[in-house]
Amino acid sequence: MTETSADPSANPSAARTPITRWLGDFQKALAARDTEAAAALFVEDCFWRDLVSFTWNIVTVEGHDGVRNLLSKTLDGVQPHGFAITGELGETGAETESWIKFETAVGRGLGHLRLRDGKAWTLLTTLDELKGHEEPKRDRRPFGAEHGVIRARQTWLDKRSRELQELGSVTQPYVVIVGGGQCGIVLGARLRQLGVPTIIVERNARPGDSWRNRYKTLTLHDPVWYDHLPYIDFPDNWPVFSPKDKIGDWLEMYTKVMELNFWGSTECKRASYDDKANEWTVVVEREGVETTLRPKHLVLATGVSGKPNVPNFRGMDVFKGEQHHSSKHPGPDAYPGKKAVVIGSNNSAHDIAAALWEAGADVTMVQRTSTLVVKSDTLMELGLGSLYSESAVAAGITTRKADMTFASLPFRIAHTMQVPVYDAIRERDADFYTRLKKAGFMLDFGDDDSGLMMKYMRRGSGYYIDVGASELVANGDIKLESGAEVERLTDNAVVLDNGKTLSADLVVYATGYGSMNGWAADLISTEVAAKVGRCWGLGSNTTNDPGPWEGELRNMWKPTQQEALWFHGGNLHQSRHYSLYLALQLKARMEGIPTPVYGLQKVHHQS
Amino acid sequence: MTETSADPSANPSAARTPITRWLGDFQKALAARDTEAAAALFVEDCFWRDLVSFTWNIVTVEGHDGVRNLLSKTLDGVQPHGFAITGELGETGAETESWIKFETAVGRGLGHLRLRDGKAWTLLTTLDELKGHEEPKRDRRPFGAEHGVIRARQTWLDKRSRELQELGSVTQPYVVIVGGGQCGIVLGARLRQLGVPTIIVERNARPGDSWRNRYKTLTLHDPVWYDHLPYIDFPDNWPVFSPKDKIGDWLEMYTKVMELNFWGSTECKRASYDDKANEWTVVVEREGVETTLRPKHLVLATGVSGKPNVPNFRGMDVFKGEQHHSSKHPGPDAYPGKKAVVIGSNNSAHDIAAALWEAGADVTMVQRTSTLVVKSDTLMELGLGSLYSESAVAAGITTRKADMTFASLPFRIAHTMQVPVYDAIRERDADFYTRLKKAGFMLDFGDDDSGLMMKYMRRGSGYYIDVGASELVANGDIKLESGAEVERLTDNAVVLDNGKTLSADLVVYATGYGSMNGWAADLISTEVAAKVGRCWGLGSNTTNDPGPWEGELRNMWKPTQQEALWFHGGNLHQSRHYSLYLALQLKARMEGIPTPVYGLQKVHHQS
Repeated sequence: MTETSADPSANPSAARTPITRWLGDFQKALAARDTEAAAALFVEDCFWRDLVSFTWNIVTVEGHDGVRNLLSKTLDGVQPHGFAITGELGETGAETESWIKFETAVGRGLGHLRLRDGKAWTLLTTLDELKGHEEPKRDRRPFGAEHGVIRARQTWLDKRSRELQELGSVTQPYVVIVGGGQCGIVLGARLRQLGVPTIIVERNARPGDSWRNRYKTLTLHDPVWYDHLPYIDFPDNWPVFSPKDKIGDWLEMYTKVMELNFWGSTECKRASYDDKANEWTVVVEREGVETTLRPKHLVLATGVSGKPNVPNFRGMDVFKGEQHHSSKHPGPDAYPGKKAVVIGSNNSAHDIAAALWEAGADVTMVQRTSTLVVKSDTLMELGLGSLYSESAVAAGITTRKADMTFASLPFRIAHTMQVPVYDAIRERDADFYTRLKKAGFMLDFGDDDSGLMMKYMRRGSGYYIDVGASELVANGDIKLESGAEVERLTDNAVVLDNGKTLSADLVVYATGYGSMNGWAADLISTEVAAKVGRCWGLGSNTTNDPGPWEGELRNMWKPTQQEALWFHGGNLHQSRHYSLYLALQLKARMEGIPTPVYGLQKVHHQS
Repeated sequence: MTETSADPSANPSAARTPITRWLGDFQKALAARDTEAAAALFVEDCFWRDLVSFTWNIVTVEGHDGVRNLLSKTLDGVQPHGFAITGELGETGAETESWIKFETAVGRGLGHLRLRDGKAWTLLTTLDELKGHEEPKRDRRPFGAEHGVIRARQTWLDKRSRELQELGSVTQPYVVIVGGGQCGIVLGARLRQLGVPTIIVERNARPGDSWRNRYKTLTLHDPVWYDHLPYIDFPDNWPVFSPKDKIGDWLEMYTKVMELNFWGSTECKRASYDDKANEWTVVVEREGVETTLRPKHLVLATGVSGKPNVPNFRGMDVFKGEQHHSSKHPGPDAYPGKKAVVIGSNNSAHDIAAALWEAGADVTMVQRTSTLVVKSDTLMELGLGSLYSESAVAAGITTRKADMTFASLPFRIAHTMQVPVYDAIRERDADFYTRLKKAGFMLDFGDDDSGLMMKYMRRGSGYYIDVGASELVANGDIKLESGAEVERLTDNAVVLDNGKTLSADLVVYATGYGSMNGWAADLISTEVAAKVGRCWGLGSNTTNDPGPWEGELRNMWKPTQQEALWFHGGNLHQSRHYSLYLALQLKARMEGIPTPVYGLQKVHHQS
């Protein structure tokens, strides 16, 4: 690691580059509590993104007003100091941008700075660890063996067995995580490392079952470099696109070796918060036996795509064939020769339709609204390749560095960087898109042509990463009814509003998922769900993401309007990265470290 | 990676350093098949260690004669070329030593060169991969998903389930590994990556059970940096010294995610080789059902410490208490207040005696011969620290680089480097050793004071890495009978040849393990065991390692006198490193690549 002190008072000769000069000036302004001078170090159209280090929140402020406001509310408590360039994440190699480090009263931070004309254009500040509560890793790793002589010695197994037996009965967890998919498991691992007693509650029997139980042809649509869990990378021989059962096995083993307290075959029945005791009452049924847990914090990690949107079409009660939501679809094995209608045209719809066709079913896809389609290899190369690919790894871009680089780009301008990418994608695959449109497929690239990543952040839906199904749609092997809505079902068919009747033995509702606060409604109360409001989305005022602008994803990984209720979700990349900040927020609370929240989000939408 | 071509014909200007000059000259001599000129490039007292790349064997030759002989027998077949400095393993930073790379007709090699006065003093050459059979990792990793449209598609799970069902019945494995401890598992992983169909046969139910079933206080005595398995490193939070059950869980996880064909609860009953069919008949009992496997190669990975040396003392049949070999010792829980006699004074004896004392037993250790004792932290710091430690990692010494560095030192001179280490150890812990001797403990540091590592290589026994028990011996809490032999047992006591009688409720025989060819005798025949001869040891002509000098460990990871029979064993470091060369030897045979063995070892000892 090459590090250069950028504190000019400590080492005046180092204050040579624009970056070190800026850091020195910023530090001076902060030390003097001069928010005016500090704000003046930013360009007018600046962005400061903070992950927990200044704000105990996930917040992006904009412009001089934003910077001034953030500093005026946080400076006295945070006591930031020690700003310097750091080589910890690797070199950036530019005069006008750099990785930085800093300290606060209670923690150590990492960040990123981009200058424009000597002033800050984008600033990222993140909390990396809490002083005195550093993770026991590398040179702080546990010793394992207890050398010396200890009467009535307890082995690792003795202690671990006792924990498994007593946590949740004799002793109470500090945190309960509802949902043991990758999100719950990853957050559980972070909390374990920070010494926060945690139970993960999962209705499936084994870790990984939430993948195993999906349709049989499911594979990850994100490549391996994007998918690492914290602490244990996938090995160099791991497939680019993990088959679902393989990722299931990985999660199961990860849960075991990370020593997580994973309660499988356990359903969370209900939860309520006691404002006076500052404690949740969480009733769970574990292998048929009801137990009450009393954690201080409750995390819903039931998945951004956790709560199925099952439609309510007329005639669903009279339909005599098989019908189910895509989340319950078992795969194609039972349907060769059958007539299948798939309602929807996003990822699951395409995957399921293609697998049914491959197995010899007669398949019709009903496309109700337009869809973004991008070929997988094109997306890998043009979309993710610079940060998450084998060549990025070879160029020294570690997963951590890629995550931090990604985090350093404010959401407000993210679409401007994506538009040219999709211009290039449309050019590269022009023939493909022409054929798809010719088949009647309604195609879009987002309201502002900013593509998949922005659709994902804004609405979490509306796209298909093509791994083959589009070819079947284009050539008519998968029949397409586009621009149509379902009017009703009969005993043996789906009737569309364009007048067509589709005979059906099987109807799959690939109709997506609702907002995560729907889970809060089910588990806690409709009042709490309403108080917390919609989850996910940026307030971009585009389709399915109503304004006003929020700056960050709603309710994700940060304090909500309900004390001690948190949401954890996202893809493997987000889960890996943001679990750190959620875990640090929980750990700070457990240790009694003051965590005044700056800029607690207002609720603009219920769902 | 910084690489400099050292082929002077290709890039004459690069031939600047003594290393590149030497490589150029060597290459020229080899190309001309001039073994005389090649030998003249070495100093007289030189060592050339080859791992499979030139010799299809593990061989060290010495002196000009050795070099000439090796080259004259191998050059035409091997066709070595492309010798160059490589940065693949990191920089060595010296004018007179370097990592090198080269190619052969069939593979790519890595190595290491040390010069003395411009001539080669030590040369290491190793086979790294076979051309056209590179491992599917990094940019060659499998794709996972099969994009496109495939009628009657088979998923990863379909294929894996089919393999698990059919391998060993419908299809036959190319290799059967007997023993599913860490050695069998690691070799299985290497073979899996090379696409060699393999079944691992293990009598315990689950991977890791061979650790779990040992005495409960067992932890690894080697630190984590020394213990990584190939492909998946232990995470940064892994304990320095793994508790046995934790390493058990890791092995189970590893076996699963590396997709090994691990047959648990399976006992290998007998095996015989058919010289005409070039095939083994291996009879196993799997969960009570007898099955015959017909692999082309059989690997015994039953552990260097696999076959217990159970002594045959007079009176063992009349002793009414409990008695067992250390490998069967369950731990101390059943013995508080009991009188325990531990026969032996090496690692297991000390671990078991200390745990019994901690649990409140009355313990006597019977030391029959002198023992090397070294404190764990001293060994970590002075013995392993430069290659395997957190600071080594921070200095850029990857596990691979450490392994290769270790491999680059010829066994013949290894002890000369260890003697000063043990001089320093004795000085550092002088008080400790004085107290231990005062208690009557018979101490040694090897016949030539070269310490633990050499004892391990020469005889695999004779030492204790002190993690606390020596204190109990020194202060008399563990009673010591040293220099005594067991004369006989009575119904309730152990009688020693010094006239003492030790009352005993429990006798533990911590009497070590026999040579691995004892397994060959049990499983195959005494004839084959005799033909193969003793395993392990260098022929150093020191205690328990009779000469003549062998240059390499007997029978380990290399061809034996029995066609198609192989031994894999050693600690985690050796298993990790040498499994690569054994796997490459097996893969080459499977692919029909000629593998003429240079210098097949002669058998000097039966056991």
